[in-house]
Amino acid sequence: MMEIQGVIPPMLTPFDRNGEVNYDAHVRNVRRWNKDNLGGYLVLGSNSETPFLSEAEKLKLVALTAEHASSGRIVIAGTGLESTQETIRLTNLAAGRGANAALILTPFFYGVQMNDAALINHFRRIADASKIPVLIYNVPFYTRLMISVGAVLALSEHPNIIGMKDSSGDVPRLAELKRVLPESFSVIMGSASSWYPALTLGVRAGILAVSNFAGNECAFIQALHSAGNTEEAIRLYLRLVPANIAVTATYGVPGLKYASTLLGYEGGGVRSPLLPLDADAESRIRSILEQAGLLDQKSGRLRQE
Amino acid sequence: MMEIQGVIPPMLTPFDRNGEVNYDAHVRNVRRWNKDNLGGYLVLGSNSETPFLSEAEKLKLVALTAEHASSGRIVIAGTGLESTQETIRLTNLAAGRGANAALILTPFFYGVQMNDAALINHFRRIADASKIPVLIYNVPFYTRLMISVGAVLALSEHPNIIGMKDSSGDVPRLAELKRVLPESFSVIMGSASSWYPALTLGVRAGILAVSNFAGNECAFIQALHSAGNTEEAIRLYLRLVPANIAVTATYGVPGLKYASTLLGYEGGGVRSPLLPLDADAESRIRSILEQAGLLDQKSGRLRQE
Amino acid sequence: MMEIQGVIPPMLTPFDRNGEVNYDAHVRNVRRWNKDNLGGYLVLGSNSETPFLSEAEKLKLVALTAEHASSGRIVIAGTGLESTQETIRLTNLAAGRGANAALILTPFFYGVQMNDAALINHFRRIADASKIPVLIYNVPFYTRLMISVGAVLALSEHPNIIGMKDSSGDVPRLAELKRVLPESFSVIMGSASSWYPALTLGVRAGILAVSNFAGNECAFIQALHSAGNTEEAIRLYLRLVPANIAVTATYGVPGLKYASTLLGYEGGGVRSPLLPLDADAESRIRSILEQAGLLDQKSGRLRQE
Amino acid sequence: MMEIQGVIPPMLTPFDRNGEVNYDAHVRNVRRWNKDNLGGYLVLGSNSETPFLSEAEKLKLVALTAEHASSGRIVIAGTGLESTQETIRLTNLAAGRGANAALILTPFFYGVQMNDAALINHFRRIADASKIPVLIYNVPFYTRLMISVGAVLALSEHPNIIGMKDSSGDVPRLAELKRVLPESFSVIMGSASSWYPALTLGVRAGILAVSNFAGNECAFIQALHSAGNTEEAIRLYLRLVPANIAVTATYGVPGLKYASTLLGYEGGGVRSPLLPLDADAESRIRSILEQAGLLDQKSGRLRQE
Repeated sequence: MMEIQGVIPPMLTPFDRNGEVNYDAHVRNVRRWNKDNLGGYLVLGSNSETPFLSEAEKLKLVALTAEHASSGRIVIAGTGLESTQETIRLTNLAAGRGANAALILTPFFYGVQMNDAALINHFRRIADASKIPVLIYNVPFYTRLMISVGAVLALSEHPNIIGMKDSSGDVPRLAELKRVLPESFSVIMGSASSWYPALTLGVRAGILAVSNFAGNECAFIQALHSAGNTEEAIRLYLRLVPANIAVTATYGVPGLKYASTLLGYEGGGVRSPLLPLDADAESRIRSILEQAGLLDQKSGRLRQE
Repeated sequence: MMEIQGVIPPMLTPFDRNGEVNYDAHVRNVRRWNKDNLGGYLVLGSNSETPFLSEAEKLKLVALTAEHASSGRIVIAGTGLESTQETIRLTNLAAGRGANAALILTPFFYGVQMNDAALINHFRRIADASKIPVLIYNVPFYTRLMISVGAVLALSEHPNIIGMKDSSGDVPRLAELKRVLPESFSVIMGSASSWYPALTLGVRAGILAVSNFAGNECAFIQALHSAGNTEEAIRLYLRLVPANIAVTATYGVPGLKYASTLLGYEGGGVRSPLLPLDADAESRIRSILEQAGLLDQKSGRLRQE
Repeated sequence: MMEIQGVIPPMLTPFDRNGEVNYDAHVRNVRRWNKDNLGGYLVLGSNSETPFLSEAEKLKLVALTAEHASSGRIVIAGTGLESTQETIRLTNLAAGRGANAALILTPFFYGVQMNDAALINHFRRIADASKIPVLIYNVPFYTRLMISVGAVLALSEHPNIIGMKDSSGDVPRLAELKRVLPESFSVIMGSASSWYPALTLGVRAGILAVSNFAGNECAFIQALHSAGNTEEAIRLYLRLVPANIAVTATYGVPGLKYASTLLGYEGGGVRSPLLPLDADAESRIRSILEQAGLLDQKSGRLRQE
Repeated sequence: MMEIQGVIPPMLTPFDRNGEVNYDAHVRNVRRWNKDNLGGYLVLGSNSETPFLSEAEKLKLVALTAEHASSGRIVIAGTGLESTQETIRLTNLAAGRGANAALILTPFFYGVQMNDAALINHFRRIADASKIPVLIYNVPFYTRLMISVGAVLALSEHPNIIGMKDSSGDVPRLAELKRVLPESFSVIMGSASSWYPALTLGVRAGILAVSNFAGNECAFIQALHSAGNTEEAIRLYLRLVPANIAVTATYGVPGLKYASTLLGYEGGGVRSPLLPLDADAESRIRSILEQAGLLDQKSGRLRQE
C-alpha cells in the first residue's frame, strides 16, 4: 500500500488581476517548491480556493502539477464534491491528468444526514470506482462536520482507501485514530498547530498550510524529531504555530497568499467573494513572520535557506 | 419593486432509480402545485438537492418550471454558488431560461472570511450584473453563517436587491429585520415553524419546505390570519409544526420526499450521499402526517382538499 | 391551579459602593414597581445577580419583597441550586419568608449528565417536597442547557409543578410547548425579544428583563394585543426589542442596572467579577433608550407615564 | 515559586446511601492514594461534586485531606465561586484548614461579561487577598468559557498566581501557552486524553480524572517519557485514553466513581441530580477498564501494582 510521507503543501492557486488562474505562476511555484524539502503536493485543497474553480481550471492545475513536480513526489488532488457520482467522475478525470491519489472531502451541506452510514457508503462507492487510491479529508473548520473514528475504522478496511488527512487539530482524537487504525493506514496531520504532537504519536506526514512558504521548516521539525532532538524540534514548532494560526484561522487564504508572496512564492490575488487583506492585516502578518524568524526584519528579504 | 407574496414551495427534485433527474415527474409536480393555492415556485433551493445537480440539469429544471408554472406565479431560481463570478454567470443563464428572480445563498465555505464587507461586496456585484432581481438567502442550518441585520440593511438600498429569504426561524431577528428594513423590501419566512409568528409581524411570503405537500394548509394559515381568525390560524399552524420539523431538522430531504410522495406528489429517490429513509423513519413520518391531519389513518389515502 | 399572568420583572439587586446589598433601595424599588402595571415580582432571578448572594441575603430579599409587594401580586423566588436537596431546603426557607412560588433553574454544571431522566427526577423530588408551587426555569443563555419538550410534558403532570419560564426566545419551541402542554400549565415568556409573538401564541405572562424599567410598556403591549390592536402592539414591541437586546445579550446585568437607574429606579452597582459599564457603553444604552422612546433626548428626564 | 509536579487526582467525594459525605471513606481513599505514585491532591475539584457541597462539608474535606496526605504532597483546594469576595473568603478558610494552594475556577454564569478585563480583575483581587498561592482553572467542558492566552499571560505576572490547570485538552493552545508563559509558571494538564502530548511540550504536572484509580499508570507515562522510552510511554497513554473518555465525557462523575470502586477505591454514591449508572453503562465501563489492562477480565480482581 502506498504510504504518504513528509511535508506536503496544500498549494495556493495564484490568480491574476482579472481573477483568472495564472498558470505560469503556478508552474513557477511548483518549481520553487521542488527545491524545498517536501514529500509531494496537494492540488485543489481548501487552501487552493477550489470552490471557486471550474472543472476545466481544476484539471489543468492537476495536469500542470503532475508535469512539473519532481519525480518521486506524490501528487494528490482534492476531488471531493457533494455528489458521490460527480466525485467519482472528477476523481477519474484527475487520475487521467496525472494525480497519484485523491483527497476526498466529507460531503457536508446536508450535515445532519451525513451520519456514519451515509459517509461510509459515499467513500466506499468512490473507492470502488476510483482508478487511484483515496484519502479521506476531515476538515471541520470548513465543513462543520467530524467524521467519526468508527467510520474511519470501517473505511480503513477498503483496499483503495489508504489514509486520511485530519485537519481537526484534535490531538486526543489523533491518539485514538492511531490506536485503532492499522499501521499501514496513513494518518496525515492537516494542521501545523498540532504538527509536533502528531509526530510524537507516530504520524509521518503533514499537509500543512504553512508549508506553502515554510516547507523546509516543517520538514526540519520532522527531521529533528526523528533524530531525537526533541528540544530543537519543539522550539521550531512553537515558532511556527503563530504563523500557522495567522494564515488559517485568523486571515485565511488571503493571509496565506500574502505570506507566501512575502517569502518568495507567487501568491497572487484571491477570487471574490474573498477580499484582499487590508494594510493592517498585512502589517500584522509581516510582523508574525518576522517573529517566527521567517522574514528578515530590516531588509525585508527572504529567509536564508 | 416586485413584491413576493404568498406561499412558495422550495421544490424537491425527483430522481429516478438510476439517480437521473426525472423531468417528467417534475413537470407533473408543477402541474399539481399549480392547483394548490401558491404564490410561485422556488427551483434549485436547498430542498432541491441543488448541490448534487449539474449546470445543465439546473437550467433544464428552471426552463421546465417557467414553462409549466401557472401564469402570474413567480419563478425564483436558487443560483448562488461560492464564487461571485460563477454566481453571476449562472444567474443570467437562469434568467434566460425564464427565472423571474434569483435567490442567492450566502457563500459560506470560507466562513470566517465571510464578514459583512465580503458579503456586501458579493451581493452588490451580483445585483449589479444580474438581469433579474436578487433575493438574499440566509439559511444557517446549512451554511452555519448568519448574515447580519446591518449587512442586509446596507444591501436593501440596492435597487436590484428586492428581499431576503430568512430560514433561521429566529423570530426576534425577524422582528429586528422588519423594524429596520423598508416596507418595500420583501422579507420571506423560510421556516414553517415560524410561519404564523412571521405573519403577525407583517411578513407576507413564505418559502416553506412543507408547502411541497401542504401548500394549501400554509396558504390557509395566511388567509385565516388576514381575516383576523387568529384562533383557527394558530391551531392549524401548531398542527403543521411537527410535520415541518420532521421533513427538515429530523429527516431532511429524504423525509420531505417521502412525505410528498405519501400526499400525492412525486418525491422520487434521493441522490447519493443522501440515503433513502429506513422503515422506522417512514413509519414515523406517516404517523406525524396523520397526527397533523394531512393523511387519513385508515385508508392511507390523500387528505381531502 | 395558580395561574401566572401579566408582566413580572426579574428584579435587579441594588448594591452599595461597598458591594453590600442595599435593602432600602430594594424596598424603594418595590414601591416604585408597585405603581407600574405588573402582575408580580421575581426575586433571585438571573438578573438579580443571585449567584453572588449569600443565603442570608437571599432570604432577606424574599422577605422584603413579600412584605412590600402590593397585595394580589405574586412573589416568585428563584431558589434553584445545583443540588436537589439544597434546592428543597432553600425553597422551603423562601416559602417561610413569603414566596408564593419557586422558580427552579435547571441544574447545569454537569451538563452532559443532565438528560431527561436526571432533570425529571430532580424537579419531581423538589415538587414533592416544596411547600409552594414550582415553576421550571429554562435559560440556555446562562445554562447552555435546554430542557426537552418531552421532559416538560412529563413534569407538567405533577400537581405541584404549575408552569415554566422559557427564556430561550425560541418561538417554534414555544409553539410546540403550547401545543402539547395542558392549558392550565403556565408557559411564561422569559425574553422580551419574543414577547409579542408569544402573546399571539396564547402566552399570558412574561418575566422580562426590560420590565425592571419598562414594565408599563410591556404590559401595554399585552393589553393592545388583547384588545385586538395588533398594529400598535407590534409597533411598541419592535421599539422595545433593541432595548431588551442591550440590557441582556449585549451589556447584561450592568446594562440593565444602568438603564434602570436612568429611568428612575435604583440600579446600584454590580458585584465583582461583573464590572461597571464604561462610558462608551453607557452612552450607547442612553441612545438606545432614547430611540425606544423611553428616555427624553433633550432633558434627560424620565419618560412620562 | 512553588512548582506543581507529578500526577494529582482530582479526588472524588464518596457519599453514603443517604447522600451524606462519607468522611471515613474519604480518609481511607487518601491513605490508599498515599501509596500511589502521586504528586499531591486536589480536593473540591469538578470531579468532587463540589457544586453539591455545603461550605462546612468543603472545609472538613480540606482539613481531612491535609491531615492524612503523605508529607511532601501538595494539597490543592478548589475554592472558586462566582463571586470574587466569596471566593476570597472561602480560599482563606481553606488555607486555614491546611490547603497549600487554591485552584480557582473561572467564573462563568455571566459568560458574555466574563471577558479578559473581568477575569483579570477577578483573579488579581483574589491573588492579592489570598494567603496561599493561586492557580487558574480553565475547564470549558463545564464552564463553556475559555480564558484567553493573553489574560493568562497578564495574570502570570502576579507573584501569587503560580500556574493554571488547563482542562481544555487543546494541544495547540497548550503549545501557545508554553511558548508565551515564563518557565516558572506551572501549566498543568487537566485532561488525560492529552497527557502524553503535554509531556512532550514540557508540561510537568497533570490533574487527571483517571488518576483517581490509575495514578500509577499516569505517573509511569511521565516516568517513561522522562527516561526517553517514547514507545512504551505512548503505548500506555493510548491504553488509558478510552478509560479517560469513559469517566469524563461519556459517563462523567458517576462513571468515575464506579471505575474507582472497581479498582479498589471507595467511589460511593452520587448526589442528586446526578443519577447512578445503569447496568449497561456499568458493563461498558468494566469492559473498557479490562481493555485498558486495569482490570483482570476473569477474576474481576484488582490490577497488580
